[in-house]
Amino acid sequence: MTYCLGIWLPTGLVLASDSRTSAGVDQISTVKKLALFEKPGERVVAILSAGNLATTQAVISMIRQNAGGGGAVGPEGDILAARSLFDVAQIVGSVLREVMRLNRSFVEPYGDPSASFLVGGQIAEDGHRLFQVYSAGNFVEASSRNPFLQLGETKYGKPILDRALTMRSGLDEAAKLALLSFDATIRSNLSVAPPIDLLRYEAGSLKAAQLAKFTAQHPYWADLRERYSTGLSQLVESLPEPRF
Amino acid sequence: MTYCLGIWLPTGLVLASDSRTSAGVDQISTVKKLALFEKPGERVVAILSAGNLATTQAVISMIRQNAGGGGAVGPEGDILAARSLFDVAQIVGSVLREVMRLNRSFVEPYGDPSASFLVGGQIAEDGHRLFQVYSAGNFVEASSRNPFLQLGETKYGKPILDRALTMRSGLDEAAKLALLSFDATIRSNLSVAPPIDLLRYEAGSLKAAQLAKFTAQHPYWADLRERYSTGLSQLVESLPEPRF
Repeated sequence: MTYCLGIWLPTGLVLASDSRTSAGVDQISTVKKLALFEKPGERVVAILSAGNLATTQAVISMIRQNAGGGGAVGPEGDILAARSLFDVAQIVGSVLREVMRLNRSFVEPYGDPSASFLVGGQIAEDGHRLFQVYSAGNFVEASSRNPFLQLGETKYGKPILDRALTMRSGLDEAAKLALLSFDATIRSNLSVAPPIDLLRYEAGSLKAAQLAKFTAQHPYWADLRERYSTGLSQLVESLPEPRF
Repeated sequence: MTYCLGIWLPTGLVLASDSRTSAGVDQISTVKKLALFEKPGERVVAILSAGNLATTQAVISMIRQNAGGGGAVGPEGDILAARSLFDVAQIVGSVLREVMRLNRSFVEPYGDPSASFLVGGQIAEDGHRLFQVYSAGNFVEASSRNPFLQLGETKYGKPILDRALTMRSGLDEAAKLALLSFDATIRSNLSVAPPIDLLRYEAGSLKAAQLAKFTAQHPYWADLRERYSTGLSQLVESLPEPRF
């Protein structure tokens, strides 16, 4: 499994992915699931992947190969020439459909070939945006009414976001909540694991300056987890007990 | 969907279930998913149900009809004569298999006929125990290493239990955590809804004296949710922010 999270706020984006890939219990490995395409001052595009690893790697590789080639929107689309993040989402969807067309019938006897993606970033004057590309290649966009999108093992980490994330949350608070959401998921499920790649993108900056890798031993993340666990236990203890 | 939770502690049990049943978005209703069988001073048995409503109701009805009939362990087993909760779990599994044998082929064209159960309680000198009966009719038992069992929409409510429930938790604390686990689930998922039926069973008491129904408006639960949300927001705010 995988857990990827994208948060859209008026002030920017927080995008995060775990690193666990597993094809059965005896083949557990780590991979980077956050791919970055950047032309500082012009565009920042991050693509987060979940699903069949061969499919997601083929999609990202094809997008990389076509980057700079000037192709129009479609399976050979040029992500570095796309006019908007909407066009980028279309390119990701088209490439995914092409990879599935080529591979689906060969892979299905062995397992699920499908994959899905989060696409976040900003291109020039087009505001910062966040999309979720489904395994069918179609996609939806995050908004102030629906400020976060998730892929993979989404449920364990959703309650903390539902409770604490609002349109008034700052980017640092959102990054903190993202790490707590990952911690909840990792504690409750073996199939999601650090390191966490986390991109904090400030709207209008048009550069990916704040990309961090949080290993399990990362001092900030270890401290955050410890303080949160202690604080939560104290909170629960402070609450009144039910009477019957 | 459904959410049922059973917690086993050295001092007793906490068993809780929601009340949402839905067969499509336009047929949402509430049902009681906690069935109680009691002979005060001798035995307390609670059965919590998840899955196909016709199946779970048929299983509980058959168990009720056979109660007091003196049947040995099997699909006609007498839950009021069973020597141990292990035997009760066997009866529930056998009845489930019988209901599935009779109905599966007719129901499958329309949907999933399967169901699963939590069985908790105490019979005389046999200590208080907690079992999860799978849809195949086999079952597993909770223990100090694995103190809680869940049915249905299990993931949203798991992190709070993973973090805060320990073998040193008292029954009141466990009841509080159970209600917070249900609140997390209800907030994040439409398919689980109050009222919550919650049984707090003290080991050795051999009576089901503490059974409560928590509606959304229940003063204690409303207060608990409010305090927890406020406290959690304050906790998150108090945590240091990441640096990049």
